[in-house]
Order: sequence, then structure tokens, then C-alpha cells
Amino acid sequence: MSTYKAPLKDMQFVLFDVLQSEKAFADMGFADVNRELVDAVLEESARFCETVLAPLNAVGDREGCKHDPVTHDVQTPTGFDKAYKQYVEAGWPSLVSPPELGGQGIPESVGCAVKDMINASNLAWGNFPLLSHGAMHALLHHGDDWQKTIVLPHLIDGSWTGTMCLTEPQCGTDLGLIKTKAVPNDDGTYSITGTKIFITAGEHGLTDNIIHLVLAKLPDAPEGSKGISLFIVPKFNVSEDGSIGDRNAVTCGSIEHKMGIHGSATCVMNFDNAKGYLVGSANRGLMAMFTMMNSARLGVGIQGLGLSDRATQNALRYSRERLQMRAATGPAFPDKPADPIIVHPDVRRMLLTNKALVEGSRVLAYAAGLAADGSNHHPDASAREANDALIGFLTPIAKACITEWGIECTYNAMQCLGGHGYIAEHGLEQLARDARITTMYEGTTGIQALDLIGRKILQLQGSGMKVFGEDIKANIEASMATELAPLASQLAKIAGEWEVLTREIAGNAMKDPNEVGAASFDYLMYSGYVVLAHYWLKSARAALDANVSEDFRKAKSETAEFFFARLLPRTLTHAANIRSGARVLMQMPDERFDA
Amino acid sequence: MSTYKAPLKDMQFVLFDVLQSEKAFADMGFADVNRELVDAVLEESARFCETVLAPLNAVGDREGCKHDPVTHDVQTPTGFDKAYKQYVEAGWPSLVSPPELGGQGIPESVGCAVKDMINASNLAWGNFPLLSHGAMHALLHHGDDWQKTIVLPHLIDGSWTGTMCLTEPQCGTDLGLIKTKAVPNDDGTYSITGTKIFITAGEHGLTDNIIHLVLAKLPDAPEGSKGISLFIVPKFNVSEDGSIGDRNAVTCGSIEHKMGIHGSATCVMNFDNAKGYLVGSANRGLMAMFTMMNSARLGVGIQGLGLSDRATQNALRYSRERLQMRAATGPAFPDKPADPIIVHPDVRRMLLTNKALVEGSRVLAYAAGLAADGSNHHPDASAREANDALIGFLTPIAKACITEWGIECTYNAMQCLGGHGYIAEHGLEQLARDARITTMYEGTTGIQALDLIGRKILQLQGSGMKVFGEDIKANIEASMATELAPLASQLAKIAGEWEVLTREIAGNAMKDPNEVGAASFDYLMYSGYVVLAHYWLKSARAALDANVSEDFRKAKSETAEFFFARLLPRTLTHAANIRSGARVLMQMPDERFDA
Repeated sequence: MSTYKAPLKDMQFVLFDVLQSEKAFADMGFADVNRELVDAVLEESARFCETVLAPLNAVGDREGCKHDPVTHDVQTPTGFDKAYKQYVEAGWPSLVSPPELGGQGIPESVGCAVKDMINASNLAWGNFPLLSHGAMHALLHHGDDWQKTIVLPHLIDGSWTGTMCLTEPQCGTDLGLIKTKAVPNDDGTYSITGTKIFITAGEHGLTDNIIHLVLAKLPDAPEGSKGISLFIVPKFNVSEDGSIGDRNAVTCGSIEHKMGIHGSATCVMNFDNAKGYLVGSANRGLMAMFTMMNSARLGVGIQGLGLSDRATQNALRYSRERLQMRAATGPAFPDKPADPIIVHPDVRRMLLTNKALVEGSRVLAYAAGLAADGSNHHPDASAREANDALIGFLTPIAKACITEWGIECTYNAMQCLGGHGYIAEHGLEQLARDARITTMYEGTTGIQALDLIGRKILQLQGSGMKVFGEDIKANIEASMATELAPLASQLAKIAGEWEVLTREIAGNAMKDPNEVGAASFDYLMYSGYVVLAHYWLKSARAALDANVSEDFRKAKSETAEFFFARLLPRTLTHAANIRSGARVLMQMPDERFDA
Repeated sequence: MSTYKAPLKDMQFVLFDVLQSEKAFADMGFADVNRELVDAVLEESARFCETVLAPLNAVGDREGCKHDPVTHDVQTPTGFDKAYKQYVEAGWPSLVSPPELGGQGIPESVGCAVKDMINASNLAWGNFPLLSHGAMHALLHHGDDWQKTIVLPHLIDGSWTGTMCLTEPQCGTDLGLIKTKAVPNDDGTYSITGTKIFITAGEHGLTDNIIHLVLAKLPDAPEGSKGISLFIVPKFNVSEDGSIGDRNAVTCGSIEHKMGIHGSATCVMNFDNAKGYLVGSANRGLMAMFTMMNSARLGVGIQGLGLSDRATQNALRYSRERLQMRAATGPAFPDKPADPIIVHPDVRRMLLTNKALVEGSRVLAYAAGLAADGSNHHPDASAREANDALIGFLTPIAKACITEWGIECTYNAMQCLGGHGYIAEHGLEQLARDARITTMYEGTTGIQALDLIGRKILQLQGSGMKVFGEDIKANIEASMATELAPLASQLAKIAGEWEVLTREIAGNAMKDPNEVGAASFDYLMYSGYVVLAHYWLKSARAALDANVSEDFRKAKSETAEFFFARLLPRTLTHAANIRSGARVLMQMPDERFDA
């Protein structure tokens, strides 16, 4: 079985040393959030995740969720309900919510570290509370009085969970094709009818109620994406005063049989004149939904991070224990029948790749969380705006790159174990199966790539990239006077090429709109490696002065060096691909693909 | 459910147009093997695979094999036994065996095409007959009279199957650590005792008997890999005259629960004073085993090919049917609610990547098969020697690169389907799970990488690479006068760099033995892309003159162009990694990895 130990030292290093978040929190007006408090939160989270959630990970995979076709109920794996109860009792659901609504007012970036641990411990379980955040966000920003004062508190304290009901059989990415109908009733409510698929946590017995956030079309709605409205549809009707009434006409028709995350209920939800409540303005639902997506997408990125971390921990342990062959330079442990496989350069290549991607991704994810904090909380309007641009820019990179690296890290970890990696008993194959969804849900990697180059760079004129560019510049300047100057020079060079490539794509796009899509994936990945180079330089520099062990300090500089030598060169291929243009992709007629 | 249609046109094109195998077969003395015969074999194989094996693929995954802990029997999934019976009745097991032993004398390269179809149709099922080949090979080359005349014919006609029992709990790659003991009996047989794990098709009821090929140590054996002997151990004892007797003391203790290939029985085999027969000379078992490995490894490479092909076929169909968003250049099908997703450049990037890798891998795999034919059958000794060097050189590349591309192709195919790719119903996730074993069994990618650079290039002084280099040169010369000259120039350039890199590694290895392992993986993949560039140029050139449709011809040249523009640039990263050397991999002490 795979095990998990929360890497508290690294989490604290990222938050306090690399991102200097204690000062950032103070600047943002999180008055009482000091290091002591955050450390206590992280330690308590580690205890809960390691002892309660992590042991249920294999159970959830083995048992899966079960759907009763008669009652439409979904039964979660053994122990999931008890763990959820403990989670609520300990107050975790309200961690990052505003104090004025009963929340604990902890910054989102600290919440990222907690999610990091939850995902590493038990991704499938983590999916039950995950999307409540979207519903909370919608009600907080767009809800009416009743929605805010009666419904929202239940989501915040975790006594109810929320869902996001977007996808339908005929549409996922293209929500303009939605068919679910909302017909106004006389009492101001709406009758919602339609079928939604792939609804995470759409049905379960962990809570007394479930609040579905549903995209649907009003009878007079304009065609396409500008005619979509947002509704909440409770599983059980909720009275004016918040008491729970009878069952609403929304049921789970079936659950999907999936490659992984077996413990997570992926539901087909049937709405049959279910009572719904409009959230925000009519026909403006898609906009409201998109504002929530940054958070959900970053959340999925952190799923990739957590799985990568756990996989790497287990591959490292195995590589230290498994004796096979001798080191190329002669026996490292002559008294043992063979050397541990960590002596072999190619095993080290995989372990170091994982280490560099995991720890680099951690900085990226938490930095995105800190940008979210800044965009929500900074007292200065221009700082809020800058952080808002930054989070918009970092989100597609964090979502797509960290999940792609999750595929790679779980792949490498299995590979370290050889055939043993393929066996359920070791637990690594589960992590790889669970990771496989993360590059698809909440927008595939291809969609993130288009979001980055099409929307965040070209449409919004790269405002987020500019903010990030300033941080790179400062990083290079501060590093030039240190032993890290060679890495800083490499970063300067690659950041310069990044700018050039960005301009080239923008130029090509004016001539041929397909150039954007043709460059998008490679541009995304190129950007991911530049972003990680920046954060690795920052990490290595932070380690020079941080109050950490000599081993920890050296591990950071050696891993940074590895990243620049062995992973950053991937940009060479991505740059060549970007420059190869759209023609080789577009020239073949559709029917010739299998001529 | 995923479907499969054997790509006969492409298979025939590869065999007859690209590899000119009709002439090659004649040169090798396969007197009666002409195009007509081969076409008939391929068509009959396609019919069997498409109609019998392919429909059982999902069944095998869903049901898996079942082990009875009392009887030690293994029950295969519904329909597997009937399909095996049909396979034997149609004579498929003896296809490539020598006529003098009851075989049909069809070349190995044609057998590769048949395996391509079997693997695409049902990889798990294909694992039951797969390893008989190794046992046949061992008995053919090293067996005594009884083994050759009594045991071997049953393996050839498929009435019995064979296994390869190498791995033990404490050793996989490092077979010098084997503990299984063989004690001589008075009657010339041996008593075998020990535990073997990961034994593919170790137990099943498809045949009347199973012949286990077992590596074990004699009491007086030298330490390490030079003290290993090879034995056959039948499941049921076999009398002098070949009649089947009582049960031998070898039983299946359990089967593994795996990520995929659920229909393939992966067995723990317990030998408890089982009666065994020495094959070949004492203490020379590992050598005998290694001579079989080229074939088994190429077989696994073709598993990657088959899965990639099937995944791509299904992703292509989905991409043509699924309507989502509009083409960047404006609606391609204005009368439909949205355009099929194949209009989007990034979907085409994935489909073309798969097409280029699948069809390129097909040439590589069949070319390796043709080299095997040449090394076994060519009347000219120097041609046999050249082909022997070539097959040794191509095998690690075919095994490792095609299976790595199998991971990538099944990944891309799932990605084309978005969230639907993750759902069991569509069948693509099974292909990805099944593919995941192929980079691990029969030697991990890392092991193939060491075999290529360490053994085939450095130890054997690159004799196989030289043979291959001659073929590249001829290809470039022949292409220079055609419209493919630009691709030929690119190939010349990359082949030149390949030589330089090879010399650099050889030079570095003299200073530091770790440089070999540090470069090995990237050198392997670099080599794979050069090899595919060569075969793509050859394919595009063959298509210029071949008797194929205009669409087929253009598809080849456009895919070749795509390969050179979009996949060959991966060599840039691999070259940079090779040149970054061993230091960044080796400098971190083991204990610092999680400091």
C-alpha cells in the first residue's frame, strides 16, 4: 500500500520563505494570520490527512461508490462518511471563508496547502467537499438575501455540499449547446428539466442536503452562451427559514464506471421539473460560472500536485529499499547482495524529475493561491487588479501543467518499481489512474492552453504576464549577486525568448486564426517551464537565507540545478513546435486521416 | 466500447512497398512466400482478430482471471477458451515455425503483422500464446532429442503453451540474485524448488499442458548470473512417448491484481520439488534466455503498437462525430449546431502525433521482424551476421520507444474524448491501462536504454548501428532527387548529430561510468526519433511509386512532414539532456532526496 507523510517542512518553506506570505498576509489585512497560526493549521491538517484520509484511499478505490437504481441513492465507500463528519466537526469546511459569514478567514494560499494534503491523502474523498467552494462563491457574489443568509451558511460549515452541474451529453466545453430548460413559476422559482452528466458528488449520504448549481436556459433565452442562466437546485427543498422539506425532483440516474477516483461519485443527474432558484441575473449564468472556475481549476491543479507528491514519496522509499544490480562505479554496499536502485543514474533521473516538478509545482500552486488572496483582500485597488490579472494568468498554467506533470510523476514513480508498480498492492497504479482525470475535467489541457494564449495573452493583452514578468525581473536581479547567478542568466535568456515567442504567435494569429490553436499546447508547456524556472530560482535563493538545515538548503540548490539542466531544455522542443506553425496540422483533409 | 479494424492497407504497404519484403523473402529462401500468400494470411488474421478477439477485449477486462485457492486453478474470462480453440484449429500457433517441425514457415515479419492485429484486438488474450515462442526457441536451439521431438511439437501446434519463469520476489532485472534451486535426481531429471512471480499465463485451462521454462541454480553453481541454469518444468508430467501423466509439483499460489490486462493471468508459481529437465548446458541458462529475449521484447513493442493503433482509430472516429465549438476560421459545418472537434488544431495535433507514431512504429516493428528473418534464414553468412547485428540494435529501440509511444498515444486518444475518455464504456481507458505494463515487463525502458547504449553501442562497438546507418545513407541518397529532398536533408543533419552524440557518450564513459546511465534514456529516445525519421522518409518515398490511392500517398507525405516538423524536434531536448551529463544526477546524496 502507498503511504503518505505531509511534507510540512517544504510547505512552510514555500509559504514563508519563498513567497514571504507572512508579510503578504499582513499587507492584505489578514490581521491575526501569523506564522504560528498557520503552522498550527498545517500541523493539524497533516494529522487529519495522514491518519484519517490516507488510510481510506485504497478502500475507496477498491469498493467504489454504489448506486441504487430504485432509491437513486449513492453509497460511499466504508469510512468516507465518518471521515467527512470528523472533517466538519474539526471546522475544515469553513477554513478560508470570510469571518463575517462564520468562516475562519484563513488565506486561500494556506488553504492550498491543506488541499495539497487532502489530495495526496485521498483524492476521491476530497472531491466531495471540493465543489462546495464554487457554490459558496456563486451565492456570496450573486446570491439574494435568502440564498446568502439561509443557504450559504450550510455550505460554509459543511453541513451541506454543493455541485457544479454544467456538462450535458451533447456538450462539455461548448456550454452554448446546453439544453436543460428553466421555466419560471408563479412564486418566483423555476422548474428545471434536463440531464446533466459527470456531476462530481451529485449524490451521496454524507450531508443532509446537496445544493446543485445548475446552468439552464430560460424559455426566451438568446441562442448560445449568452442565453444561459445559473440556478441553485437543492436535493431537498429548503423553506424560507432554512428547514429541510421534501425531496426535490432531482435524482441520480446512474454513476459512471471510471478508470480511477472510484471513491468519487460521478453522477448522471436527472432534473424533472425540479424547483430551482435563479442566482444573479438571467442569461448571465456563464459569466458567473467562469468567475468560479479559477478556484476550481487551481483546485484540480493541486490534485495533480498531491498525487505527484505521494507517488514520489513511495517511489523514493522503494528505490532506497530495493536491491538490484551494482552501481556503475562499483558496489556501493558491498555487504549487501546488491545495491539499492537509487544508485543508478536513470532511477535518479526519474526521482529528481519528480522532486523538481513536485516542489516547483508547490510554489506555483501556492503562489496562485496568494494571488487569489491579493485579488480578494488587498486594501490597495491597483494591487487587487494586478493580483487579479496574475491569478488569471497563472490559473491555466497551474491547472494544466501541474496535472500534466502529475501524469508524468505518477508514470515515473510506477516505472521506478518496475513490474511491481503495476500491481494494485503497491498502490502506485491507483495514483496513476486517479491522476488521469485531472488533465481532463474542469477543462482539458487543450482548453487551458487556449485560455492562456487566446484569452489571457491575446485578448487581455497579457496583463497577467506583465505582472509575472516584473517578478521574474526582480528575481533575476536579486539572484545575480549570489552563487545562483548562472541560473539567473539562464532564466533571463529563456524569459526573453518567451516574450519573443509570444509576439510571434500574436503576429501569426493576425494572418491565420488557426495559428493560435496550433501553438497553444506548446506555448502552455513552454510557459510552465519558464514559470517553474522562475520559482526554482526563487526557491534556491530563499533557501540560502532561510532557517533550514544544510541538507535542505543543498537539496534546493541541487534540485534547482537539475531543473535548469534537465527539464528546462524541454522548452527547446516546444519552441520549435510553436515555430513550425499551423500548416502541418491543418493541411490534411479530415477524411484523409485514415485513407 | 472501442472497436478495431485491422489496417490491412497500411500493413501491406509497410511490408511490400516500404520494406520490399517480397524480394527479401525470395532472397532469404522463403520460396513459396509471395504477396498473394501473405495477403491471404493477413486477411484471414484480420477476420479472426476483428470478429473473435476484439469483442472479447472488454469482457476480459471486466471479468478478469479468477484463481481458486483450493484447486490452484485459474479461470480465464468468458470466451477466452473458445477463442483459443479456434486459434489452434485455424493453425495460427504454427504460423512462423519451420516446416520441418510442422510449422508453416511464414516469415517472422509477417508474424509481426499478425501480432499487431492480435494485440490491438485483445492484448490480454494475446498473452496466453505469446511466451510459447520463447519455450519453442529454447527447445529448438538447446533441447535434447526428447525435448525436441516430443515436447516441442505440442508448443508449435498450440496444444500446449509455454511460460518464462525468471522473476522472483527479490529479483527482476538482476537475475544473478535468483534463489530457486535445482537438485539433480538419479534419473537425470531435477527437483526444482522455489517461487517465481509475475508469470504470464502461468496457469490456465486453455490447453492440456503448460511447459514452464524456469531459471534455477544447481547446488554447485557459481555465484551470480554465471550460475544459472535453464529447465523445463511441465504442469503435468510427460512420459517418454509424450502421453500426459499426473500433476507435477508446480502450482499457482495466487494471481496479481493489476492496473490492466485483467484477462491475462499473472501468476505466482510455487515449485515444490517439481520435476524439471535441464535445457542446454548447466550454468548457461541466462545466455539461452537472453537469446530468446529479442523476440519477446519485440513482441512487447508490438503490443504498444497494437494498442496505439486501436486507441487512435477510436479517437479519430470520436473527433469526427463529436460536435463542439466552431473552427477558428469560421463554421465548417454551418448547418450543424457546432463543428466536429477534428477542425481544431490542437485535436489535430494529437491525432497526427498518434498517426505518425503508429505508422512509423509499424515500419520499425516489421523491419525488426525482417531483420530477424534475415538473421535466421539468409543463405549468405555475412547477411545473416549483418541482420543479427541489426536486430540486436533495433530491439531495445522497438521495445522501449514503441511502448513509450503507446503510453503517449493512449494518453492522446483519451484526451481527444475529454471526460468521456475516462469512462469505462468508451473503452479507451482500458487501452491506456493495458498499455501501462508494456514499458515495464520484459525489461523496463531504463533497462532497454542501458542495453542500447551500454551493450549494443559501446560493448559491441555499434555494429548494428553501422548496418542501420548504411540504410539511412541509401535512403537519403534515393530521396534527394525527389520532392522529399527537404526531409532527406533534415534526416542527414540529425543522423550526423546522432553519430556525434554517440561518440561524446563513449568518450565521457571512459572518464565516468555513470555517464552511460545518465545519458541512456535520452539517447534511447533520441535514437527512436532518428529511426522513425528514417522510416518516415522511406515511407513517403515508397508512397510516391506505390500502387496506392492519391489520398493514401498524400497522407503519407503529409504525415512525414508533420513528423519532421513536430516530433523530430524532440531530439533537441534529448540532445541537451545527454550533454548535461551525470553530475546533476549524481551529486545529491541519497538521504538528501527528502531532506
